[in-house]
Amino acid sequence: MEENKVIEYIRNKFPYKNGIGDDAAIIANNHVISKDLLIEDVHFRTKYFDPKSLAHKSLHVNLSDMAAMNAKPLYIMLGIAFPKNNDDYIQIFIEEFCKVCHKNNVIIIGGDTTSSSDKISISITIIGISDNPVKRSTANIGDDIYVIGELGYAHLGLEALENDVAGLELFKESFLKPEAKIKESLSISSELDITAMMDISDGLVNDLKKLCLSSGVASRINISEFEYIKDFQLACDKLELDPLSVALMGGEDYGLLVTMKPDAYKDFDAFNLKKIGKIIAGKKGLVLYDKAIDISVKMFSHFGEL
Amino acid sequence: MEENKVIEYIRNKFPYKNGIGDDAAIIANNHVISKDLLIEDVHFRTKYFDPKSLAHKSLHVNLSDMAAMNAKPLYIMLGIAFPKNNDDYIQIFIEEFCKVCHKNNVIIIGGDTTSSSDKISISITIIGISDNPVKRSTANIGDDIYVIGELGYAHLGLEALENDVAGLELFKESFLKPEAKIKESLSISSELDITAMMDISDGLVNDLKKLCLSSGVASRINISEFEYIKDFQLACDKLELDPLSVALMGGEDYGLLVTMKPDAYKDFDAFNLKKIGKIIAGKKGLVLYDKAIDISVKMFSHFGEL
Repeated sequence: MEENKVIEYIRNKFPYKNGIGDDAAIIANNHVISKDLLIEDVHFRTKYFDPKSLAHKSLHVNLSDMAAMNAKPLYIMLGIAFPKNNDDYIQIFIEEFCKVCHKNNVIIIGGDTTSSSDKISISITIIGISDNPVKRSTANIGDDIYVIGELGYAHLGLEALENDVAGLELFKESFLKPEAKIKESLSISSELDITAMMDISDGLVNDLKKLCLSSGVASRINISEFEYIKDFQLACDKLELDPLSVALMGGEDYGLLVTMKPDAYKDFDAFNLKKIGKIIAGKKGLVLYDKAIDISVKMFSHFGEL
Repeated sequence: MEENKVIEYIRNKFPYKNGIGDDAAIIANNHVISKDLLIEDVHFRTKYFDPKSLAHKSLHVNLSDMAAMNAKPLYIMLGIAFPKNNDDYIQIFIEEFCKVCHKNNVIIIGGDTTSSSDKISISITIIGISDNPVKRSTANIGDDIYVIGELGYAHLGLEALENDVAGLELFKESFLKPEAKIKESLSISSELDITAMMDISDGLVNDLKKLCLSSGVASRINISEFEYIKDFQLACDKLELDPLSVALMGGEDYGLLVTMKPDAYKDFDAFNLKKIGKIIAGKKGLVLYDKAIDISVKMFSHFGEL
């Protein structure tokens, strides 16, 4: 049973309009809520995840869901199951998790701790508030598509870590300690007339496909305008990866994918809003490119989110 | 690092009055939220948990947290991580979980599904609504203590299942498919002037101790008035367990522990509200008995809840 089938099955059973299908669900009028699991040896390995990085990432992947909805994060429920032999790791994780929560002004209001037989499982529920939650399902034909944040950096970091490749610290850091785009989301949501938004957790193409499916539209990415910094190209060479594939398909960057009307754009000093394509009429969920792609784009068989 | 220390550490870092320390936290004025983990080979074994029972229990342990707060359950976030080789089990689990949610009028609004390397982890967040949430921290000296539901039945079931003892279906069922006391909680909360409430998940003594700690009071249990049905005594004999220990310490019954002023009591047709003792002045958290106990009461080293 594939993860996505589980999600579709449940979604069909519970057709609640503010529920499954967005980065977070809406409850109590203006609160949004989301949940993410991080499972040892699926989402992280303790071999290269020191407990502080894991604490940082555990919180930020959840903060990112709040960013995706234009919500201010408020509360955390922390669930953690850990084996008995891992005391130091867990203690540092917990201490750092509390610090990162304080730093981001979120309060831990509950959760559950338990032992596990051999692996660490982390389950975090985050609750935020938004008077104007931005959904995935509201992009319109003719909108421009923008991204905030780098594409593919985290994937290069993951490849380097998994294959024990030295160096490439910039990319390893992107994978180990992603920064949720909370401030960026609140800025663009208040200053621009954006039409739809989600975070980029499963790779640009996968996530754009989701946004398009949800909005009932198609899209075209202008890959001929993609530019790569020198370090990115060198890292791709070292890891024997194709830069375009990495940028299009690499997951876990936790940037933002945003749509808006062509005349809505303005510059921001603090961050770069990169135009990457357009919402077009066409088969619901279709993602096209402005030129033929001569690579076989291997889709991530990534983890499903409800 | 013990689970309870983790909880105390976090609680000290986040002194939010409606947060850690009750069966659920209060958010958005009148919503309550709680989270429970169920980990394979810690909380359940697939050997004796068929997927339908597991689905039932996964929901009901969370519904029970809503009952404990006098809240009407509304929404569920379902997190599930499962190994690849377990398709049939997971499919039946998911189908049954959806059914049990429908039956209890709760909507699945999101969650996360992912693979795991070898064990099933279930993480459920439940959200309810209550205009009058009942806490653990508000019991007063002189209050009578009542329980709703049976004491120790689930523990007998667990012992029978773990030791492969045939029969004892009543008790096995209590462990495998506990019924959250939602209706009972809403009835007593609206019709009686109750002062404090929580669910009994870790055993009567453990949970009463928590209630007393939280309320800054002590308590006395009238064990000389405890009565056991014949089947309970026979089961204890068969399993070589002491009935009183089982009743006092057995976990996972998911009944309710309730305090109220002596004159607040009335009878209910639909269920039995059993008086078991009194809130008294004394050392915060102390649980006394009306006669000396000649058994060494072994405390459950159970799982911590934030």
